[in-house]
Amino acid sequence: MPPFLLALDFGGTKLSAAIIACDLLDDAYNPVETATLDWAALQREYSPPEVDAQYDIKTMLSLANDLLAGQKAAAVGVSFGGPVDAETGTVRLSHHVSGWENTPLRTLLEQELKAPVFVDNDANVAALGEHRFGAGKGFESLMYITVSTGVGGGWILNNRPWRGVESMAGEIGHTVVDPYGPLCLCGKHGCVERLASGPYMAQEARQRLQAQPERGRILRELVGNDLGKITARHLSQAAGKGDDLAWEVLERGAWALGNGIGNAANLINAQLFVLGGGVTKAGERYWQAVRTYARQSALPQITFQVEPAHLGDDAPLWGAIALAHALARDLPI
Amino acid sequence: MPPFLLALDFGGTKLSAAIIACDLLDDAYNPVETATLDWAALQREYSPPEVDAQYDIKTMLSLANDLLAGQKAAAVGVSFGGPVDAETGTVRLSHHVSGWENTPLRTLLEQELKAPVFVDNDANVAALGEHRFGAGKGFESLMYITVSTGVGGGWILNNRPWRGVESMAGEIGHTVVDPYGPLCLCGKHGCVERLASGPYMAQEARQRLQAQPERGRILRELVGNDLGKITARHLSQAAGKGDDLAWEVLERGAWALGNGIGNAANLINAQLFVLGGGVTKAGERYWQAVRTYARQSALPQITFQVEPAHLGDDAPLWGAIALAHALARDLPI
Repeated sequence: MPPFLLALDFGGTKLSAAIIACDLLDDAYNPVETATLDWAALQREYSPPEVDAQYDIKTMLSLANDLLAGQKAAAVGVSFGGPVDAETGTVRLSHHVSGWENTPLRTLLEQELKAPVFVDNDANVAALGEHRFGAGKGFESLMYITVSTGVGGGWILNNRPWRGVESMAGEIGHTVVDPYGPLCLCGKHGCVERLASGPYMAQEARQRLQAQPERGRILRELVGNDLGKITARHLSQAAGKGDDLAWEVLERGAWALGNGIGNAANLINAQLFVLGGGVTKAGERYWQAVRTYARQSALPQITFQVEPAHLGDDAPLWGAIALAHALARDLPI
Repeated sequence: MPPFLLALDFGGTKLSAAIIACDLLDDAYNPVETATLDWAALQREYSPPEVDAQYDIKTMLSLANDLLAGQKAAAVGVSFGGPVDAETGTVRLSHHVSGWENTPLRTLLEQELKAPVFVDNDANVAALGEHRFGAGKGFESLMYITVSTGVGGGWILNNRPWRGVESMAGEIGHTVVDPYGPLCLCGKHGCVERLASGPYMAQEARQRLQAQPERGRILRELVGNDLGKITARHLSQAAGKGDDLAWEVLERGAWALGNGIGNAANLINAQLFVLGGGVTKAGERYWQAVRTYARQSALPQITFQVEPAHLGDDAPLWGAIALAHALARDLPI
């Protein structure tokens, strides 16, 4: 067997690749020799408007070939930032980069890399990464949720990824928690994503500041009164310094996310919800609110934990390693 | 192997038992010889306030022994109307009958019947019944939802029951669809059950009739002006005859159920939702509303069907047969 596993992450704004030696993992995904994996990784950041799918694939192949240095990979795991049919390895589309519609990514990569490939969407792959190597180690069932530009999720049920019948499971961002809430891009009102994602919370803060000129002094100062600059990060900074308006918006996001988690817990009774993504760096008060609302909206008999992700932006790459590992060892994926 | 499988259903208001010959089913749960299974069943209806767990168990054992007529069962599947720890076969409690708290039902029955026993809650067992023998035959993943006195659910994921880590999965009745809605017994506002179950819809109709004395003529006539008599059945009868108030209440229930289904579809991407229980006999207009609201509240890329259950009140008994069958043949349960 060739000695390396290859992991590829087609992210929204960057491409990442990593290789690790096959024998660094045992069948339970435990690093054999070292406490943390020693991997080689390459990244290239890029600006989506200028690039397309062809560019993405070409660049990624060049990263991969640089890492492999002439060797063949034993197997390749791929995380893609958009909906994927995991069964066929076909990308449905990208929300960030043009030209990805119905691209048979697995087939293309298998031809180029001469190795078995498995492709899945980033939320599912990140869930797998956190389960095998991060916050979910040792848990049987979990949902990974990323709260960032959007709100997406992936399930691990009974130690295996649960993708749903069309690889579309995990769309917690588009579950409705407030049917009288504002309109989401998806066409529904009061989705979790519409209330809890970074850009939508920033937009909400701008609208509140415009409507209430006497409020939000700290938040205004943080962006030099240029409301267009507000991001979710400013909201948590301002809230931390006592800005009530900023906290109201963040708390509304925590409420929406917490209610989405509570509903998901009632439906699936998973042990753990792992939260990652930029918005979840909003501080202890935000976390406490998410946990409180999640607890309140689930039945008392249903117990679960809500914990921060451990792997940060690398979760999809780690998950891709787990995919490649399973593929190389013929374990179920 | 003893020639019979035994199925027991501890329902809310009746006890049922059935036996079938082991060799009437093949490993795919297809009836071997006949299109419909030929079973022997006994039932006893009872009034919960007068009875307790001891009575239930004694009566059920007497039904079982009458059916078995001195023979031993190869295996026993049990449906219980309340939360159960399926792993240990322990009943947590019954909402209808007293004295069931923490009863080790599997152990008790194994001692009495000298056969392996598997116990699960009625929604999970009914889901299994519909999957193996009813509306879900041939589908990989489904949620069974019963809309009756309460609203409960059970999952089949990848052809297997999904019970959750504490056997508590499927609680769609207590997912929140309207956070500003009325208070449910569970302590939350606007749960699916609070808006869509029979007794709560009847209560809502009574309140509307009291508040709007000029409306609901047809509904009032149906119950001879005794508003206390109103049931969900009267609502669908009155709505069918053109009573707007009755339809408003039913439609609100359909909205709540549809939104619960849409959220569940977004989270799990199951192919099929099978609806059973008395309320789902409310007619084509009700069904159309449920389907429309479910479709609207799920992402367009997520496809699913919403179909009526086939097995009616017998679904838990059929599911219990499937449990016993799996147990007898050492198939995964």
